[in-house]
Amino acid sequence: MQFKRPEHKINLNPLQRGGILTKEAREALIEFADGYSVCDFCPGRIDLIERPNIKKFIHEELPEFLGCDVARTTNGAREAKFMVMHSLATKAKKKAWIVVDGNSHYSTYIAAERAGLEVAETENTGYPEFKILAEKYSETIEKTKRKGEVVLSVLTYPDGNYGNLPDAKKIVKISHSYGIPILLNCAYSVGRMPIKMNKFGADFIVGSGHKSMSASGPIGVIGMKKDWEPLILRKSKRFPNKEVECLGCTSRGASIITLMASFPKVKERVKKWTQEVEKARYFSKELEKLGLKQLGEKPHNHDLMLFESQIFYEISKKHKKKGYFLFHELKKKGIIGIKPGLTRNFKLSTYLLTKEELDYVINSFAEIIEKYRNFIN
Amino acid sequence: MQFKRPEHKINLNPLQRGGILTKEAREALIEFADGYSVCDFCPGRIDLIERPNIKKFIHEELPEFLGCDVARTTNGAREAKFMVMHSLATKAKKKAWIVVDGNSHYSTYIAAERAGLEVAETENTGYPEFKILAEKYSETIEKTKRKGEVVLSVLTYPDGNYGNLPDAKKIVKISHSYGIPILLNCAYSVGRMPIKMNKFGADFIVGSGHKSMSASGPIGVIGMKKDWEPLILRKSKRFPNKEVECLGCTSRGASIITLMASFPKVKERVKKWTQEVEKARYFSKELEKLGLKQLGEKPHNHDLMLFESQIFYEISKKHKKKGYFLFHELKKKGIIGIKPGLTRNFKLSTYLLTKEELDYVINSFAEIIEKYRNFIN
Repeated sequence: MQFKRPEHKINLNPLQRGGILTKEAREALIEFADGYSVCDFCPGRIDLIERPNIKKFIHEELPEFLGCDVARTTNGAREAKFMVMHSLATKAKKKAWIVVDGNSHYSTYIAAERAGLEVAETENTGYPEFKILAEKYSETIEKTKRKGEVVLSVLTYPDGNYGNLPDAKKIVKISHSYGIPILLNCAYSVGRMPIKMNKFGADFIVGSGHKSMSASGPIGVIGMKKDWEPLILRKSKRFPNKEVECLGCTSRGASIITLMASFPKVKERVKKWTQEVEKARYFSKELEKLGLKQLGEKPHNHDLMLFESQIFYEISKKHKKKGYFLFHELKKKGIIGIKPGLTRNFKLSTYLLTKEELDYVINSFAEIIEKYRNFIN
Repeated sequence: MQFKRPEHKINLNPLQRGGILTKEAREALIEFADGYSVCDFCPGRIDLIERPNIKKFIHEELPEFLGCDVARTTNGAREAKFMVMHSLATKAKKKAWIVVDGNSHYSTYIAAERAGLEVAETENTGYPEFKILAEKYSETIEKTKRKGEVVLSVLTYPDGNYGNLPDAKKIVKISHSYGIPILLNCAYSVGRMPIKMNKFGADFIVGSGHKSMSASGPIGVIGMKKDWEPLILRKSKRFPNKEVECLGCTSRGASIITLMASFPKVKERVKKWTQEVEKARYFSKELEKLGLKQLGEKPHNHDLMLFESQIFYEISKKHKKKGYFLFHELKKKGIIGIKPGLTRNFKLSTYLLTKEELDYVINSFAEIIEKYRNFIN
C-alpha cells in the first residue's frame, strides 16, 4: 500500500485521541466512501436529507446533545467560528472587535482576521497554571469597548494547550452583562465530556468531529440559540432554500456519515467522563513521581495535559538525535503522538486509554529516563 | 449495518460518477480513517506535511496537473470560489460586482452573496442548446461596469445542467481586455478531462475532489497565477505561517488522503477523454432514437447531459406513482442516479461506464417505454 501511517500501539496526540473511529463509523465509511455518496436522495440541502437520516441527526439529535435550539454541521470547528464571526462582522457598523481568552486556539484569531475583526485577549494567570479568570473578561471588555464595538466574546473550553476548564457560566454572565453574545469553543469537550450550551447560557457552541467525536475529517458542529438563526443561518436572496454561511451545503460526504455512525457511542462515552478525569489525574501523578511537572490546572479536570520535563530536555542536549530522541525512544515502544523534536514541554492526552495502557506509557517514560540516567547531571 | 446506500449496479448521477473511489483510495481511506490521521507529522500547516507527502502533492503535482503556478486544497469547489471572491471583496473599495455565465452553479451565486458581492449574469442562448456565447461577456461587463467595480468574472466549464463547454479562451481574453481577472469553475472537468488553466490564460481554476477526482467528500482544489498568491493566500499578521483564507488548514483528514491516493489514476484517466465523449454521443443518439431529446450542445462534448422526455412525462401523468415511477422502474433494474420524481427533464452522466453498461441502460429505458406503451397517447 502506498500510504501508511506509522505503526503504533498507543497514540497520545490530543488531536487524535477523540477522533479514533468507532467500529460503526468504519463500516459506514466503507459503505459511503465515494465522493458525494450521502447525496443519493438529496432534497436540496444536506441537513434535509432523510436517507441516510441526516435530517433527524442535525435537527433533533444534535441540538439535544449540544443543549441548543438549532444546530448544523460545518467543515470544522474553525469554519463554524468563522461563520459566526463573519455574520456578526457583516452586521457591524464599523471595524469591530471580539474578546477572546488568552488560551485561544490560533484558528480563533485567524477566523476573526478573515472576518475583518480585531481581537482583544484576556490574560491568563501565567506559569504554572495558565488559568483564565472570569474577572479578566470584564476588564478586557471594558478596555476594548473604548476602542470600538465588541460583537462577540469567545471562550475556549477547554483550551488546547493546558486543558484548562474556566468558569464558563460566570464568563457567559459577564459577557451578557455588556450585551455581548458569547461563543464556546468546545473542540476538546463536545464528544468527550458532558456539555450543554444552555447550562452555561451561551449563545453559540462549536465542536469538532475529527477531534472529539470519532469522525473522519474534516467536520465540525455548531449549535446556537434560536434568536441567532435568522442572522447566522440567513437564507440566500436568490435561492431561498440555501443558507448563505453554509454556502448551501457543508460536510457533504464521508465526514458526516462517520459522525452520525459514531454518535450513539459518543453519547454513551461522555457519561463516563469522571473516569476519564480520574485516569488523567492518576497519569499526571505518576509522571510527576518521575520528575516531570504537569502544567495547567491542578488537580486537572481534562484528559489533555501539558508536561514540563527538565529531565528529557537535559538528555536531549547530550543525545545525538537531539530533541528527537524522545520521539524515537517512544516509537520503539509503540507509542506515538508526542510531537517529534519536543522534550522540554509536550502535551498529550489520556483519553479512552485503559489503566493498563497508561501504566505501559508511564513505565516507558520511566525506562527511557533509566536508560539515559548518566546523561542527566 | 446501520447505514446502507441503495443497492445498485449503475449510478447515473453526474454528481457521483467522477467521485467513485479508486481501489488505492479505498485502501488509503481505511488506513487514514481516523479524525486527524494525516496530521501525525504536522509541521504547522497541512500543505507542508511530508508524511504522507501532502507537500509534494500540493506544491508540485497539483500545480502541474492544473496548469497553474500555485495550488491548494480546500473544503470544496464552492469554498475555493468563496476564498477568491472574499479576498477580492476585501480589497474592493465599495460594493463590487462579479460577472458570471448564465449557467452557473448555485454555489457561485451564494459564494458571491456571502462575500457581499453583487452578481451580473450573461444570458445563455435558451432552448434547446442553452449555450454561453463569449460576446455576451463583453455586453454584460460593459453594462455592469456602469453600476460599479467588477472584481471578477466566473465561467462554469462545463456547467452542471447541460454539460456545455463554452469558448473559455475567448471569454478569458474578453475579461482580461477589461482588466478583470477570471475564475474557471471546473468542478465537472478537473479530474475528468484534460484541462490546464494556463492554456486558457485564466487567473483561477477550481475543481472538486468528491465530484470529479475520485475523493471522499468534502474536498476541492484551487489553482492560481503566482500574481494572486499574495492576496488570496495572504498570511496571518499574528501567525505568519498560517494562510488567512484557509483558516490555517483546510482539507484535514480522509478527504485529502483519498484525493492523493486516486491521483495517479485520475491523471491517467483524463487522457482517455475522447473515448468518454464518444460514449456520451453514442448514448445520446440511442436515447434520441427512443424519442428522448438531448438538450445542451450538440454534438455533445461532455459526459453530463440533460434529456427532455415527453414520453416519460406522459406515462407519469397516468401512473399511480406519478413522477416517481421512472426512478422505481430503473431501480428495479439496478440503475440509480436519476433524481426521484423527475421524468420530463433529467440529467445523467455516462462517465466511466462501459459500452456494455450503457447498452444496458439504453435497453432498460426502451423496456420501460415498451412496458407502458399503452399509457402514451
